Amino acid sequence: MSKTGIEVQKEKDFSTWYQQVLTRSDMLEYYDISGCYVIRPLAYNIWQEIEKFFDAEIKKLGVEDAYFPMFVSQRVLEKEKAHIEGFAPEVAWVTKAGSSNLEEPIAIRPTSETVMYPYFAKWIRSHRDLPLKLNQWSHLTKEEADVEVRDILELYRQVYEDLLAVPVIKGVKSEKEKFAGGLYTTTIEGFIPTTGRGIQAATSHCLGQNFAKMFDIVIEDPSVTDGTAKKIHVWQNSWGLTTRTIGVMVMTHGDNKGLVLPPRVANLQVVVIPCGLTAKSKEEDRKKVEDKIQEVLTELKSVGVKVKADLRDNYTPAYKYNHWELRGIPLRLEIGPRDVSSNQVMGIRRDTFEKKPIPLSELTTRVPELLNTIQREMFERAKKTYDEHVKIVLKWDDFVPMLDAKNFVLIPWCETEQCEDQIKENSARKATQDEPEDERAPSMGAKSLCIPFDQPKNPPIVVGETKCVACGSDAKRYCLFGRSY
Amino acid sequence: MSKTGIEVQKEKDFSTWYQQVLTRSDMLEYYDISGCYVIRPLAYNIWQEIEKFFDAEIKKLGVEDAYFPMFVSQRVLEKEKAHIEGFAPEVAWVTKAGSSNLEEPIAIRPTSETVMYPYFAKWIRSHRDLPLKLNQWSHLTKEEADVEVRDILELYRQVYEDLLAVPVIKGVKSEKEKFAGGLYTTTIEGFIPTTGRGIQAATSHCLGQNFAKMFDIVIEDPSVTDGTAKKIHVWQNSWGLTTRTIGVMVMTHGDNKGLVLPPRVANLQVVVIPCGLTAKSKEEDRKKVEDKIQEVLTELKSVGVKVKADLRDNYTPAYKYNHWELRGIPLRLEIGPRDVSSNQVMGIRRDTFEKKPIPLSELTTRVPELLNTIQREMFERAKKTYDEHVKIVLKWDDFVPMLDAKNFVLIPWCETEQCEDQIKENSARKATQDEPEDERAPSMGAKSLCIPFDQPKNPPIVVGETKCVACGSDAKRYCLFGRSY
Repeated sequence: MSKTGIEVQKEKDFSTWYQQVLTRSDMLEYYDISGCYVIRPLAYNIWQEIEKFFDAEIKKLGVEDAYFPMFVSQRVLEKEKAHIEGFAPEVAWVTKAGSSNLEEPIAIRPTSETVMYPYFAKWIRSHRDLPLKLNQWSHLTKEEADVEVRDILELYRQVYEDLLAVPVIKGVKSEKEKFAGGLYTTTIEGFIPTTGRGIQAATSHCLGQNFAKMFDIVIEDPSVTDGTAKKIHVWQNSWGLTTRTIGVMVMTHGDNKGLVLPPRVANLQVVVIPCGLTAKSKEEDRKKVEDKIQEVLTELKSVGVKVKADLRDNYTPAYKYNHWELRGIPLRLEIGPRDVSSNQVMGIRRDTFEKKPIPLSELTTRVPELLNTIQREMFERAKKTYDEHVKIVLKWDDFVPMLDAKNFVLIPWCETEQCEDQIKENSARKATQDEPEDERAPSMGAKSLCIPFDQPKNPPIVVGETKCVACGSDAKRYCLFGRSY
Repeated sequence: MSKTGIEVQKEKDFSTWYQQVLTRSDMLEYYDISGCYVIRPLAYNIWQEIEKFFDAEIKKLGVEDAYFPMFVSQRVLEKEKAHIEGFAPEVAWVTKAGSSNLEEPIAIRPTSETVMYPYFAKWIRSHRDLPLKLNQWSHLTKEEADVEVRDILELYRQVYEDLLAVPVIKGVKSEKEKFAGGLYTTTIEGFIPTTGRGIQAATSHCLGQNFAKMFDIVIEDPSVTDGTAKKIHVWQNSWGLTTRTIGVMVMTHGDNKGLVLPPRVANLQVVVIPCGLTAKSKEEDRKKVEDKIQEVLTELKSVGVKVKADLRDNYTPAYKYNHWELRGIPLRLEIGPRDVSSNQVMGIRRDTFEKKPIPLSELTTRVPELLNTIQREMFERAKKTYDEHVKIVLKWDDFVPMLDAKNFVLIPWCETEQCEDQIKENSARKATQDEPEDERAPSMGAKSLCIPFDQPKNPPIVVGETKCVACGSDAKRYCLFGRSY
């Protein structure tokens, strides 16, 4: 039989805890091929909620959908050697169809640029064809591109903070950490307090004109009106969001009972469970409870609450509590014969386990309110924890101890790659034999996570005066450093 | 420069016509890997409209979405030899990652059964877990499965007839033509009048208990209440719809000007084009027309019409007419200075080229009405043509001539595989040297397309009396035969 509860503590063995939450809550099944897994409806629905929100927003920005094949020929893939180099070791090559060898191997595309841009070169003939917005974006000017890089990053922030109740910090990547071949990369950075590690939540890149030059995506300059035809290269952006979002949400909100879902993305927001009935209960009591449950379902559905009742007759209420707690359902309503008599239900929040009676007459206002409160408070708690773990550090001696205490550090920084490499080396911590598996990973050196858009004001950076905490040369801006996934 | 119009006639060179419509209307780009193509926004949007309709309907039936990996290991894929045999020659095998050979090759899954059903065996433990509906369906009884096979087929009919305005005939496949390994296959069959050939539009299969037995998907019989545990195998259905739908729509409605889109799936339903303005037009006239166009856009959008204006200043009205006719936009509105003065616009239907003035004061009622009319009449015309090409044939001598005249034939049939093979052989027609390329294909023999649910009543089949038109033994039901794609 499969196990039905979480058997380790999040604080003690984070990676086992994470695996158990994912599989035992019915979100995911591992698969016999490395890197692949089955996404079950509970998790897939969260992804669909994210898509629904994001799709509506980018449609407003004029983005259209298209489909590009998953295969790319060797010739096309390897057209731009430098760009593809980083992907090369992981590229999956199809070499056989049935039992015959292919004349030329075909790759499963590891990235979209080389697949899409030859067509962009063909489709874009005039400035009137711009902006072309098809997941990848092309623009006439840098200013247009800049605005949209930030628009998208803001939408990603909303996905994390408003939908998933996961706080993030917005900023720009260092030169070393930016997308290879791009001009600059903006990012939102998440934080997993249990391990003190960062996680890159999503990025939005300005590719500049580099790819346009590679693939010859040109238009005639519309500002030239004297009849001479001057070709200019378009500006391109690139961005993407993955199911990693769901993993960050699980890590942030999950607890030792299992998953905790923010109401806005929960496929099931409220589960109703009959209580206080035994084999000896009067038939009359049983009927009263069941009738009342039907009323409750009807009322809550009428105000848009995603609700169902667990009426299985072969499980105890306690078994059902565990079952739905493991699956993270935000609110449980218990109804027994005494509740029916006193015209109330008992509401139990998944996030805090707070228990409060709700008068039946106020159900349609109180339950939606409570779901909003849960959503808001889940974010506020996570935000408070994140903020408490971002430490301004003004001398190097404090840098590693702060990291070791599971914090991010914000330092005045010189923004040079050499210094960044040095910081990574100097902040690595050797693993000792007696540390458990899960603790070994954070011993890695700290990376620059982002230069936050929202810079600390106290103390301010005085150009030419404030020094880089790591190397002592002139500091430019505060940069966020941390150990990360 | 790319070509911007259709240069061959649909009736004369169907396959070139089809390729030109697909690529020049911006629906699709061919790709340098066989079997792959790029689906551009115009076509992708049609697919999204189909998905939106279908998704909402199957959600009502309780179907949930999940994601299964695209890869499958050799061991799992080859678990069920007989089932996979038909797919084997086309399976794409990944044998290398980067420059290293994989220990075991990985296939790109050609079908879902072997990937999904091992998990079904794990997830389904009790009759309370049924029906499990995840694209593939599991049921407790044959009756449940039967009902849903028909429910889905009916939804597929709606996709074709109500959304795409493409008529189909519903029926059940012969034993020879059913899904390998399944119990029976229901189908909707389309017809391309230009070539007289049939096309299988969509199928909905009852798999029976075969796969459940293979993959050991069992539950305890809930009807056994004496405490003994009797295992029974679940019933499964399987169905799927592909972008072939769009191809059938193009073939059915396209004409020698290009694509013709049914309004219900058109991303753009109405295009407004300023007319009657020349370089010498008074600035006042130009402004009047442009202002009026803005009004028209606002009004039409307010009643949900998908509309835009083509205000490009470097193309003539005639160029724009061709541009939007090629792309199949259902309705064109022309507005010139004289139209503004007489408070009207000129409306031109894409499907019939019928031209009628529409008073500006009635725009918000007349345009939606006209779009509905176009949708309905496109279907009615196609339906009439289809019906005229389905011929009841009562003696073998008429069979091949009817086919050669680009018809389907309905015959009283014995339903044996031997007779079916014989019909195919006897109805094949040798190609002659002087026939054009496109005419050669229909020389293939006729296949059984389906045994229609809606059987002809005149003459009725009298069991034991009516003979099979092909072999002379007892006929069971009318069967639809035709040459097909």
